[in-house]
Amino acid sequence: MDAFLEAAIDEARQGLAEGGIPIGSVLVHNGKIIGRGHNRRVQKGSPILHGEMDALENAGRLPASVYKESVLYTTLSPCPMCTGAILLYGIPRVVVGENQTFMGEEDLLRTRGVSVAVVQDPSCIALMQGFIATKPELWNEDIGV
Amino acid sequence: MDAFLEAAIDEARQGLAEGGIPIGSVLVHNGKIIGRGHNRRVQKGSPILHGEMDALENAGRLPASVYKESVLYTTLSPCPMCTGAILLYGIPRVVVGENQTFMGEEDLLRTRGVSVAVVQDPSCIALMQGFIATKPELWNEDIGV
Repeated sequence: MDAFLEAAIDEARQGLAEGGIPIGSVLVHNGKIIGRGHNRRVQKGSPILHGEMDALENAGRLPASVYKESVLYTTLSPCPMCTGAILLYGIPRVVVGENQTFMGEEDLLRTRGVSVAVVQDPSCIALMQGFIATKPELWNEDIGV
Repeated sequence: MDAFLEAAIDEARQGLAEGGIPIGSVLVHNGKIIGRGHNRRVQKGSPILHGEMDALENAGRLPASVYKESVLYTTLSPCPMCTGAILLYGIPRVVVGENQTFMGEEDLLRTRGVSVAVVQDPSCIALMQGFIATKPELWNEDIGV
């Protein structure tokens, strides 16, 4: 498997081990991970630290030129908030672990010129299926339902 | 002036006094402020804590039902990231201080059924004009330019 998607899955598993929501993400620039993170709703009581947002936060302040040469890997199809962050910073490519358990704003990303690749990785799907079955209310909270 | 927009402007001014970007926001539910914040890019080295995001973060974890009865006040037209957060949580109404110095994703919000009111408040405009003239590189960084 792609080593960067694997790193995002490692983040998701770490989140699960912490009692959190198993979604992970890494930001990659020139073949190197410059930010990594996972959903921290439970761990930090945060409504904004989705996996992708946590990866961007942990990457720190960056010039626009870096974002525009980067790829964001995420284990799950990006929600509207994370999609908006991708659009704000002009990240040109997103690799999505799966969109079977949740379909995010992939159409909006593509409409705005972002390249979106969906892997349908079995590990990503299994992580989310297990989590949603176990903690449906927490999942609904995370997606505003 | 609307007391809630005034509170958002107070947040923006606090951000400016801290050496930060003068954009503030408050989340209002049933006539009461339940979250308030301002842009913390400089203060926390954060690329995700725009004013609106900081207000949502400070409001903490909330059930979907609360967001769906809330109004978000922001001193500046919401960027794609903050727009996405509004859409994720189904916040039905946004009051925008001004959109003359920066036009965010108001069209997308309206397309998705969000009510957007733009005040064109002179204080909000003056805050951003002064800031952009003084620190154009910091402003560009904040909007991914």
